[in-house]
Amino acid sequence: MNSFGRVFRVQIFGESHGESVGILIDGCPPGIRVVEEDFLEDLMRRKSGDIGTTTRMESDKPIIKSGIFNEFTSGAPILIEFKNDNTRPTDYDEIKIKPRPGHADFTSYNKYMGFNDYRGGGHFSGRLTVGLVAAGVIAKKLLHPVTISAELIEAGGSNNIDEAVKNAIKIGDSIGGIIECRVTNVPISQGEPFFDSVESQISHIIFSVPAVKGIEFGAGFASARMFGSEHNDELISISGKTRSNHSGGINGGLSNGNDIVFRVAVKPASSIAKIQNTINITSGKPEKLKITGRHDSCIALRAPVVIESVTAIALADFKLLDKSFRY
Amino acid sequence: MNSFGRVFRVQIFGESHGESVGILIDGCPPGIRVVEEDFLEDLMRRKSGDIGTTTRMESDKPIIKSGIFNEFTSGAPILIEFKNDNTRPTDYDEIKIKPRPGHADFTSYNKYMGFNDYRGGGHFSGRLTVGLVAAGVIAKKLLHPVTISAELIEAGGSNNIDEAVKNAIKIGDSIGGIIECRVTNVPISQGEPFFDSVESQISHIIFSVPAVKGIEFGAGFASARMFGSEHNDELISISGKTRSNHSGGINGGLSNGNDIVFRVAVKPASSIAKIQNTINITSGKPEKLKITGRHDSCIALRAPVVIESVTAIALADFKLLDKSFRY
Amino acid sequence: MNSFGRVFRVQIFGESHGESVGILIDGCPPGIRVVEEDFLEDLMRRKSGDIGTTTRMESDKPIIKSGIFNEFTSGAPILIEFKNDNTRPTDYDEIKIKPRPGHADFTSYNKYMGFNDYRGGGHFSGRLTVGLVAAGVIAKKLLHPVTISAELIEAGGSNNIDEAVKNAIKIGDSIGGIIECRVTNVPISQGEPFFDSVESQISHIIFSVPAVKGIEFGAGFASARMFGSEHNDELISISGKTRSNHSGGINGGLSNGNDIVFRVAVKPASSIAKIQNTINITSGKPEKLKITGRHDSCIALRAPVVIESVTAIALADFKLLDKSFRY
Amino acid sequence: MNSFGRVFRVQIFGESHGESVGILIDGCPPGIRVVEEDFLEDLMRRKSGDIGTTTRMESDKPIIKSGIFNEFTSGAPILIEFKNDNTRPTDYDEIKIKPRPGHADFTSYNKYMGFNDYRGGGHFSGRLTVGLVAAGVIAKKLLHPVTISAELIEAGGSNNIDEAVKNAIKIGDSIGGIIECRVTNVPISQGEPFFDSVESQISHIIFSVPAVKGIEFGAGFASARMFGSEHNDELISISGKTRSNHSGGINGGLSNGNDIVFRVAVKPASSIAKIQNTINITSGKPEKLKITGRHDSCIALRAPVVIESVTAIALADFKLLDKSFRY
Repeated sequence: MNSFGRVFRVQIFGESHGESVGILIDGCPPGIRVVEEDFLEDLMRRKSGDIGTTTRMESDKPIIKSGIFNEFTSGAPILIEFKNDNTRPTDYDEIKIKPRPGHADFTSYNKYMGFNDYRGGGHFSGRLTVGLVAAGVIAKKLLHPVTISAELIEAGGSNNIDEAVKNAIKIGDSIGGIIECRVTNVPISQGEPFFDSVESQISHIIFSVPAVKGIEFGAGFASARMFGSEHNDELISISGKTRSNHSGGINGGLSNGNDIVFRVAVKPASSIAKIQNTINITSGKPEKLKITGRHDSCIALRAPVVIESVTAIALADFKLLDKSFRY
Repeated sequence: MNSFGRVFRVQIFGESHGESVGILIDGCPPGIRVVEEDFLEDLMRRKSGDIGTTTRMESDKPIIKSGIFNEFTSGAPILIEFKNDNTRPTDYDEIKIKPRPGHADFTSYNKYMGFNDYRGGGHFSGRLTVGLVAAGVIAKKLLHPVTISAELIEAGGSNNIDEAVKNAIKIGDSIGGIIECRVTNVPISQGEPFFDSVESQISHIIFSVPAVKGIEFGAGFASARMFGSEHNDELISISGKTRSNHSGGINGGLSNGNDIVFRVAVKPASSIAKIQNTINITSGKPEKLKITGRHDSCIALRAPVVIESVTAIALADFKLLDKSFRY
Repeated sequence: MNSFGRVFRVQIFGESHGESVGILIDGCPPGIRVVEEDFLEDLMRRKSGDIGTTTRMESDKPIIKSGIFNEFTSGAPILIEFKNDNTRPTDYDEIKIKPRPGHADFTSYNKYMGFNDYRGGGHFSGRLTVGLVAAGVIAKKLLHPVTISAELIEAGGSNNIDEAVKNAIKIGDSIGGIIECRVTNVPISQGEPFFDSVESQISHIIFSVPAVKGIEFGAGFASARMFGSEHNDELISISGKTRSNHSGGINGGLSNGNDIVFRVAVKPASSIAKIQNTINITSGKPEKLKITGRHDSCIALRAPVVIESVTAIALADFKLLDKSFRY
Repeated sequence: MNSFGRVFRVQIFGESHGESVGILIDGCPPGIRVVEEDFLEDLMRRKSGDIGTTTRMESDKPIIKSGIFNEFTSGAPILIEFKNDNTRPTDYDEIKIKPRPGHADFTSYNKYMGFNDYRGGGHFSGRLTVGLVAAGVIAKKLLHPVTISAELIEAGGSNNIDEAVKNAIKIGDSIGGIIECRVTNVPISQGEPFFDSVESQISHIIFSVPAVKGIEFGAGFASARMFGSEHNDELISISGKTRSNHSGGINGGLSNGNDIVFRVAVKPASSIAKIQNTINITSGKPEKLKITGRHDSCIALRAPVVIESVTAIALADFKLLDKSFRY
């Protein structure tokens, strides 16, 4: 559903071209200092405007409606809203009946029996990730001194990201990329077996980020090609430190005191300038579709901070849960 | 935690060398015929005994304690228990203080402050997957006519699985593998945005299966190297049928009427015959460790039916949730 | 926590003297017509201004931020906000250190380690019930043709409610009351054993309404003084109709096809004009306290519509859950 | 559903005349000493055999299947099973088609479309409360030094309980009663606003106990007849101590450091020796019904320990949740 977490819980809302989008955070402990400036850096990292990103520019000003009192979290739910200033709903009249390939247009039409807000993907839009980033800022504070750092390590199959992006723009196409995320200073034993392993919860929320199609922890898919003697990480200290880190910092679903490391595959954005084939859902006939909205050539450029943010949300919940267990 | 699902919910219990393991299923609708024979085929597929699997043999007889009445689900919780017949707890005395590399020994000791049942991994053992298979049998019935089929497509980096396994046995090492799972006849619009996308829920439960380190849907990691024009699946029928299936049957987190396809990376089993280095957790000193229990050379051989089962559990929950939404 | 429900879920937010209060509704099926006028009648019933209610007047205009598209629920989360226009935070400076008897001032100060918004009770204020009423309006639509009707049947121990209220105003004190709620046209078998009986879920949400201190279903406390032969409701029709209704329309936690009937005890509002004794939480010394804010002499006058609303929320969740179960 | 709690969670299973009943406890911290003898006293208090209780005698031996290792909780789920030794399923053939007045026979038949185990009420039987008592024993240990004490203060409308019970037996009828429960040493600020107030969670689980029809906290229904000046509890110490305790130890849904006090109304058992009227659900025709099973004349005699147990379960969850919040 539209909520995630057991104790530190986030609830997302809004549509791409509705009045606003945002996030409601429940279960956040009191006493964490939060002021508007805290959000700016991460929101800026997610923002568009750079080469390869959409020309739709939003102010992305976080409006805190509740839960912060005299600059500190009060223990009550925190509602953060972002206005949608720069909407052009008329861009989307055509997709009402001609679903865009690769988008949620067709599936959401069916899920909601035609009542969904189809404009710009509505509730399925990447626009909603702005709320995730805001919640991530608070989660990161709660996790201190844990650090979470994600970066785009490859785009369009190339490690020369700039060049790959410029090429995609030139040919009017889009490209994906691979993001690596590293979490340091994680205490041992975060995670909740059997079903809420660290991998389970992180992958759960990572796959709620639009365009993600794969995730691997530590050696990941390469593990499947290794021998056990090669893959096993030798324990060299009572603090949990291991010689290698093929497990990505997780054993038995629990953090083991080493860095948590994972990689995420982001597919190319589905909206492209090229004319595409689709079906008219009222007539059932094939149709040509030319997408006219403003879109990203490489959505993966803006995704690292989102990956960090959702990771922080998952780990904040683990942290609070683990405390509940310390009897 | 030890439960999964919103409406169709499973709760797992048991330890590898305790009295029993099993599963408690809640939210299962009444009127589904379930008899003991229904479990045999899938339990047999998970069982050990074949070349490359452990010599620990369990009868794996499902004991239904509640929730089935006159051969049908009654609507009450279904408890299925499996006795642990073939335990040898003394095999594990050493690991109490010398954590096995790659295992949950070290992390679970820290998580539970030394109170955990360490014998054979205790609650973290692959033994617990027998309960998942039992729940999967019921979930598959509930999903009819959906079919779920997983197979090992690669082991030890080779497509010649037999040979790879024999080699691993010969050298006293373990190997991993890659499993592909395909789900057919899925209705359009299963899945719950924003956070409970089909990928989110499936990956969540897949990563609770011991030894899984990666998952990708459709083109997965290869998506990150494709152009949008190449990746987008062209819609060719009002039933949702697309020309290609790079999205793995999922758009916007919702099933789109095509086969759901994903691949899972299984690491090599951590228990190997070779002597390994570890730390003594009481003295903090390095130690040599020789693992003497009975173990699998290629745990991935037994995993496909587990992958199918947990997929069925996730999809059964989606099915019931989707019905609740049809107002 | 600040959320309620399994499928039809509400999440409440806001503080009495913060920027706004409101509700976020998730899991609401698409296709329910909702326009602003739909809220007016129930919001008006909750409003203050009549004799015996506070002179704090709020416009109580529902601002729909998301989830309604072209006048229908879209299937996405519905955020409804109410601005706090008529706040006077300075009324509350004194209670920061002198907790008002009967209020949450002392407990919330301790719960949130002094970080809570203490102004007017903050997140604990009856002001938040405006969001419950808004969610109730949508839940009532979803429940059609079920009707829910609550009324104040007694105030200050008297059935002459007007007179009791006038007397309370005259003497500068407050009074409580008893509200009876009746639900008609409930289908048989709403409710979820074992723990989510109809009584369990209704009482759960009823006790989240400030000032409620008791609830009884059907004959309630009088049942404890009846013989079984007297209490048992004789079944007279295959539709579930019974001759009497001592069970209040619920057997085994499930609706039985008769009216669901329950009564709720509302205590007198804690804020009174009279000078009271309390403790200074910084010095630990006894203090006199004169409460100067604007308050209700008989809060129970405004509560019936809130009782209806939360009942509707609980029953809406049961309705959707019951559908999920119909395999 | 059949589970309760956010962190300390119980899942109930079983049917009155099936193989067994029991409880699965998840989220219990490790390191709590639990041996079989710990259960005996509370199980004995719930047991039948005394005058006024059923002649169905069960051994009520708790069989611990998992989660306890070397006499301590291990952090893994705790499964406790109770065999049903003394079943007489043939006693219940008639009720399959002739629902007993006041029982769940009619509602459960409808809920589960005839697939429910109808023998002795099946999953709706008071038999299942044995599992609650077992979970309560562990919850009480976790809550130390909190004490929970419930007693029957009235039966059949009389404070002379023995006499009332003897009279009920003599006339072949059943009687109800009122139970008062008092909890001491509760820390300040247990409880989770807005929806999970102490009253909300306690009432939720109390109403899952069969035969409960009302609950009131502190002055309860009498509050509705008091003035605010009378009802308000004067704070006399910085530890939260108040002069009176009309609020029952709870303000704003949070414990205030005084005893939590509440009363529960238990209706008379529905099964009575007298011939009653009902409907044949196959023919729709009126029928006479003579209930032949073994039953309780005053079920309330056995209920106090169950009330204590479920209260302990609710408070254990609050305790762990409150710890998670202490950042």
